[in-house]
Amino acid sequence: MIGICIPTASQEEFLEKLKKRINAIFSYISESQNPEAILIFNSDRVDKNFFYLTELSGGVFENCGVLCEKDGRMFIFTTRLEEEAARSGEGYAEIVVYKDEKERNENLKKVLSKYKKIGICYNVITYSFYLHLRELFDEAEWIDVGKAFRLARMIKSQDEIDRIGKACAIVSEVADSIPGILKEGITELELSAEIDFCMKKKGAHNIAFKTIVAFAKNTSMPHYSGADVPLVNGDVVLVDFGAGYMGYSSDITRTYLTGKPGKDMLDLYHTVCRAQNIAFELIRADTSTDYVENEVRKFINSHKNYKDRFIHNLGHSIGLDVHDDSYPGVDFNKQFTENIVLTVEPGIYLPGLYGVRIEDDIVIKKDGCTVLTNAKKKPVAYEI
Amino acid sequence: MIGICIPTASQEEFLEKLKKRINAIFSYISESQNPEAILIFNSDRVDKNFFYLTELSGGVFENCGVLCEKDGRMFIFTTRLEEEAARSGEGYAEIVVYKDEKERNENLKKVLSKYKKIGICYNVITYSFYLHLRELFDEAEWIDVGKAFRLARMIKSQDEIDRIGKACAIVSEVADSIPGILKEGITELELSAEIDFCMKKKGAHNIAFKTIVAFAKNTSMPHYSGADVPLVNGDVVLVDFGAGYMGYSSDITRTYLTGKPGKDMLDLYHTVCRAQNIAFELIRADTSTDYVENEVRKFINSHKNYKDRFIHNLGHSIGLDVHDDSYPGVDFNKQFTENIVLTVEPGIYLPGLYGVRIEDDIVIKKDGCTVLTNAKKKPVAYEI
Repeated sequence: MIGICIPTASQEEFLEKLKKRINAIFSYISESQNPEAILIFNSDRVDKNFFYLTELSGGVFENCGVLCEKDGRMFIFTTRLEEEAARSGEGYAEIVVYKDEKERNENLKKVLSKYKKIGICYNVITYSFYLHLRELFDEAEWIDVGKAFRLARMIKSQDEIDRIGKACAIVSEVADSIPGILKEGITELELSAEIDFCMKKKGAHNIAFKTIVAFAKNTSMPHYSGADVPLVNGDVVLVDFGAGYMGYSSDITRTYLTGKPGKDMLDLYHTVCRAQNIAFELIRADTSTDYVENEVRKFINSHKNYKDRFIHNLGHSIGLDVHDDSYPGVDFNKQFTENIVLTVEPGIYLPGLYGVRIEDDIVIKKDGCTVLTNAKKKPVAYEI
Repeated sequence: MIGICIPTASQEEFLEKLKKRINAIFSYISESQNPEAILIFNSDRVDKNFFYLTELSGGVFENCGVLCEKDGRMFIFTTRLEEEAARSGEGYAEIVVYKDEKERNENLKKVLSKYKKIGICYNVITYSFYLHLRELFDEAEWIDVGKAFRLARMIKSQDEIDRIGKACAIVSEVADSIPGILKEGITELELSAEIDFCMKKKGAHNIAFKTIVAFAKNTSMPHYSGADVPLVNGDVVLVDFGAGYMGYSSDITRTYLTGKPGKDMLDLYHTVCRAQNIAFELIRADTSTDYVENEVRKFINSHKNYKDRFIHNLGHSIGLDVHDDSYPGVDFNKQFTENIVLTVEPGIYLPGLYGVRIEDDIVIKKDGCTVLTNAKKKPVAYEI
């Protein structure tokens, strides 16, 4: 059950998939830059690009790396800690194992010494590891290929969409079960524990990010992380969580009303729902991202009480990372494109009172978008 | 319940604590380097040094930062997303809020422009953010203070030891409850879900790292991460998990035997226990780390079947990060020092068969060490 994730694909199809990715990455690098090889090395942190290139699983792969040439030739560098897991890549890569830093450096130097231009991701590599590489191979030129990875990873294959879809199905089921868990006195941390447990019970391989649970006025802090605060009937409940499935993530937010919500609360809830629907109606391939974002913001700002209270972006692309670092990043070409998967998450935050955010994951299609998270979001008020 | 973690300390004591930390960090920077201020900015990743300097909680603090001068004057930079949480630092810092990258850069430039030498952590900052800073303030010299943070964070205060102690108590209780959960057919992923749930139920604020659960021959891979593999009576079960409590982490590993373990298995288990005890007996302030590590390795290698099968370090220091990046890092001065908290985790891995690892967290004292994780580790064989 460990090793490469190839549930339905043959080894041939799998290799074809990796080759396609490598081609896509190199296609985004300008001719003048054109490195002979790309090095992704998990030095001070684990870089998801490592998994994009290798699809290795069953390990953590700290202090491991991958080097890949334009034609697909690949080396996997691994410590002895990850050796067994890395060996599942023997079908497509040469495996280089080292027992300490000295051996690691010697091996890296040996493999890399034949290249004059090597691609690395400036946005992931630490400054100290960059200096270390330069010390190892003074003669090489180190090209930034971070943008190429971001652009390649932004457009998902059907296989990737399926994995995200499964992660979305898990969080949707969990979200629909939450009203049944809400009861007077349950704390934010307890609810967060229940949510994570449910995700795993429903097949999540991991928790995509630290689950956010906020009650009452804590909901006005978009990144509030939860404490021993007990739920009181009448509180607003905001949950934001994600599941990991075969390396890919989902990300959902629901806001639940309890007790007898007042008119103001219901108006706020409906406004956020409507804002999200405006986005859904407008998003399709080739639409301007700024246009959609502005329409949503304009709508929210048109309500006197909510003016300037939508204080974050409309969404972010999602994939191997929860924030897949493309949309709405600076590299983004300002147009939605087919098979981008992203979140749509308008929110309105009224400090000292409460906040409402609703977030779904969508895949962009030619003529619109498909919502992957189908949990309920009618403003039912739950008695707890 | 949100904001700064000061459970028992007065505001005055709290400020004293932060000041002590700042003094410690600056004391580790050589005279010739001596920056006027230190900047920790969570650009592409969140740097735990941010929490070491601010003790802020209740938020994620992506794209936020802290600047601190030698005399303790502090600025907290925050997006609007984290503004409410960051404002709990108003008692000791000036809060700078920005709504987009342009405003962020203007603010950073304004605050930083008066310094000639600014400290940053080369081992955390990405190369792209380093280039960005240099572009913003061409005139400044950027000093590496990563080592100073690592050294300061390595020696724990009583307050930090108490938090780690609580995190250790949680995982110990959970570890002792695991034999009761083991049953034929439970999968690695299901057991991992139960462990995480138990940690949270017992008061963990977060899961410190992805829980490792391995059955049978998967136990021979130290970083194996779990799959839909069902437990069979007679399997070895290895679990490695950690709890987060008020920002600090614990890290424990237990190996359980089920069914009727053979002589070989029991011998392996006893050897690992003995190896750990050798470490416990030798570790005290002012002992050489190499000496202890070598004694343990020598003992394991003296068994013909286990020679060269202890394939990782004896442990690592632990604190705000699970791998707190000091012992056994290159900065470490090769001597154990009082009030370092670290893991002691010998393991022996026999590929294709099984592996055993036992890990406890200890705090180093003048005359020995205190074990903080007190879960059972007698080689009882559990019938499941």
